Amino acid sequence: MVSSRERLERANATVVERFCTADPVLVDVLPAIEVVPGMRPNLVLTSGPPRAFDDFDDGQRNAIVYGAMFEGLAENREIAEGKLSSGEIDVGACHDHGCVGSVAGIYTASMPVFVVENAKGGNRGFCNFYEGESHRRLNYGSYGDDVRRNLLFIQDVLAPVIGRAVRRAGGIALKPILRRALHMGDELHSRNTAATLLFTRELFPHMLGVTSEEEARARQTLEFLAKSDYFFLRLSMASSKMTADFGHGVEASSVVSAMTMSCRGAAIRVSGLGDRWFQGPHPTLEGKLFEGFTMDDVAWMGGESIINETVGLGGFAQAAAFPLQAYQGGSPQAMIKMNLEMYEITAGEHTDFGIPYFGYRGAPLGIDIFKVVATSIRPCVDAGLAGKDGGQIGAGVLRIPLECFRAAVSTYEETYGSVMRSVGPL
Amino acid sequence: MVSSRERLERANATVVERFCTADPVLVDVLPAIEVVPGMRPNLVLTSGPPRAFDDFDDGQRNAIVYGAMFEGLAENREIAEGKLSSGEIDVGACHDHGCVGSVAGIYTASMPVFVVENAKGGNRGFCNFYEGESHRRLNYGSYGDDVRRNLLFIQDVLAPVIGRAVRRAGGIALKPILRRALHMGDELHSRNTAATLLFTRELFPHMLGVTSEEEARARQTLEFLAKSDYFFLRLSMASSKMTADFGHGVEASSVVSAMTMSCRGAAIRVSGLGDRWFQGPHPTLEGKLFEGFTMDDVAWMGGESIINETVGLGGFAQAAAFPLQAYQGGSPQAMIKMNLEMYEITAGEHTDFGIPYFGYRGAPLGIDIFKVVATSIRPCVDAGLAGKDGGQIGAGVLRIPLECFRAAVSTYEETYGSVMRSVGPL
Repeated sequence: MVSSRERLERANATVVERFCTADPVLVDVLPAIEVVPGMRPNLVLTSGPPRAFDDFDDGQRNAIVYGAMFEGLAENREIAEGKLSSGEIDVGACHDHGCVGSVAGIYTASMPVFVVENAKGGNRGFCNFYEGESHRRLNYGSYGDDVRRNLLFIQDVLAPVIGRAVRRAGGIALKPILRRALHMGDELHSRNTAATLLFTRELFPHMLGVTSEEEARARQTLEFLAKSDYFFLRLSMASSKMTADFGHGVEASSVVSAMTMSCRGAAIRVSGLGDRWFQGPHPTLEGKLFEGFTMDDVAWMGGESIINETVGLGGFAQAAAFPLQAYQGGSPQAMIKMNLEMYEITAGEHTDFGIPYFGYRGAPLGIDIFKVVATSIRPCVDAGLAGKDGGQIGAGVLRIPLECFRAAVSTYEETYGSVMRSVGPL
Repeated sequence: MVSSRERLERANATVVERFCTADPVLVDVLPAIEVVPGMRPNLVLTSGPPRAFDDFDDGQRNAIVYGAMFEGLAENREIAEGKLSSGEIDVGACHDHGCVGSVAGIYTASMPVFVVENAKGGNRGFCNFYEGESHRRLNYGSYGDDVRRNLLFIQDVLAPVIGRAVRRAGGIALKPILRRALHMGDELHSRNTAATLLFTRELFPHMLGVTSEEEARARQTLEFLAKSDYFFLRLSMASSKMTADFGHGVEASSVVSAMTMSCRGAAIRVSGLGDRWFQGPHPTLEGKLFEGFTMDDVAWMGGESIINETVGLGGFAQAAAFPLQAYQGGSPQAMIKMNLEMYEITAGEHTDFGIPYFGYRGAPLGIDIFKVVATSIRPCVDAGLAGKDGGQIGAGVLRIPLECFRAAVSTYEETYGSVMRSVGPL
């Protein structure tokens, strides 16, 4: 007879293998309404577990309202709030639609999304576009003519130009870009400089030979890409969502298959525990703020880019990205220590994504809820920080709270029996 | 009265400042005959101090002969050797013409060169093109239809396409690329992956709107650039040569302003000691060879890419490029140690080129002949390794021999008086 521990280890090995073998290919760029499962004209998607509009507050509530206004579902804030409260405009959870939200994570029907398909499994992940270098962005709860103009630029210029190039290319394989960027100073969450460049290089040959009408838009797209070192983040997020989903639903696995944040706190899903979210308070935070802000200005308005840490990137590959010290603080030594810690709470190591400073050792992969609870080492996450008045005000390292993992362990043991005592060595 | 030591330190500070403030801009791509000072139709430039053709042997001699044949100065080897011996075909030293040679460093009149100009001083540096990923390259002493085809591709496709884009761009500033590449895993001698990408991105906007005739060549150029992670090396070499020359000729400076290798050994020039070369034996070597080769197969056929170490790149920035371990061997720990050692033999630190792992400390800059002699720490150099039968057979770290520095110290003291005793602390 197989012990509960053996069963868990086999299941976790399966999840880790799926995380490693998922093969993300960017196949298209399309408006959400055309491709995101379950998308509807009156639906606004946001970060976090599903909850009613009236349960959202502050920045995340603002972002939802602004999303409805941007989509033309309401003329002003008051009307938007009324329709959102009455259900005339619906609020959904990104994760339930194959999407992940950056910060507040607002998706509306007309917004273009990257369509990332798994060449190994056929499942898909989606993510909308980075809004540009301005600190005022809809996903950070900001709105106004400037934010609207940037969103329309994405719809009218960026998405069509990039979509056409992607289709001409017959799809762009993302795994070689992800792998290589880790050798070029990116950890693919808070630093995406190399990946953005590598992605741009893939696009460019398919932008040659444009008509003179198209040329102006092609130029604008290249200018935007050259200025937007963060651009690739949304591609890695779509890729990571697809990868995480590929590893989700393996019976008896104790590996985390999604993490999310909302204005109400953090939450995780576990591969062997269905679609239930295990919730906890907000993460703790060490960060570096832009000039003129203090930690008191930091606001929680959601964030699902931590799907990248779920599959071995970001905080789990910090030692690949020493240049991050300039952006989110910390020292190379602190990054190395934090990255090494993550090996203590993961079920395996990535077979394709190596960290040069560690002699190309694979990134720690597959957060095991039992190891987190047993060691009290909380997963670390690289993230942008939102301000109380909206906008990005800095970046830092978050720690996902133990409560999420304890709740998951409790449910795991109710479902599959006790394994806690035998997880080790610790 | 100023002591000889004070005079030396002031002079060295001037050289370091010039190395830091030189501002390299790629202004054009032209055939050597049109732009390299003193270039003539019957002249072949090679690495190392000037010497007569009959003083070259083995791989470097072959490379010179092949250069003459490629240029159409001789139909076959025998004729080429006769004309080279008689002086009908001349051999010159790259450094005497504003150029630096990669390995054997062959320049002939028709070869396109990068023209790099100092926006701060007006002086120029030149370098010809990387021949591509094949291990068989003229500069590694190989020749044949394949090598010839690659050289003609450079002349007919790469150089015209890139030259046109550079002129359309009004020149491309190289310093931002160099600085940024050091934050993206390059040390800019044996690893140029990020710099090649960053350079390619600068070209893109100026390649849009090509005619359909030009489009095919533009595509070939992009394909070449995408395959050629080493491409940027020749741009950093031209930049470094210009930079080193900008710091050359400062009276009483003991800072090295050029290093070179030929089939006869290594040699250095010193800023305050004119154009004289101080010679020594071949460097020592630790390397990693391609499959099927041993250290006995390594041949010395020259090399002036070490101009990059002269101005703080390559071996002097190894800790910026941990991915190098896969290519030239060594561990991150060994790279860090070696890089730190270089601070002990340099006169300053780069004010623009920082190393992320060292918390962005500036790269060690300006090799002081007195510090080398006093510490016996030899400058380390990242380099490709040539094989006895021609071609590249690996890569590794070289150490420039102490003899060069001892000879220079001796001449320095004859010229400027004794400072040796007072250089310290050691």
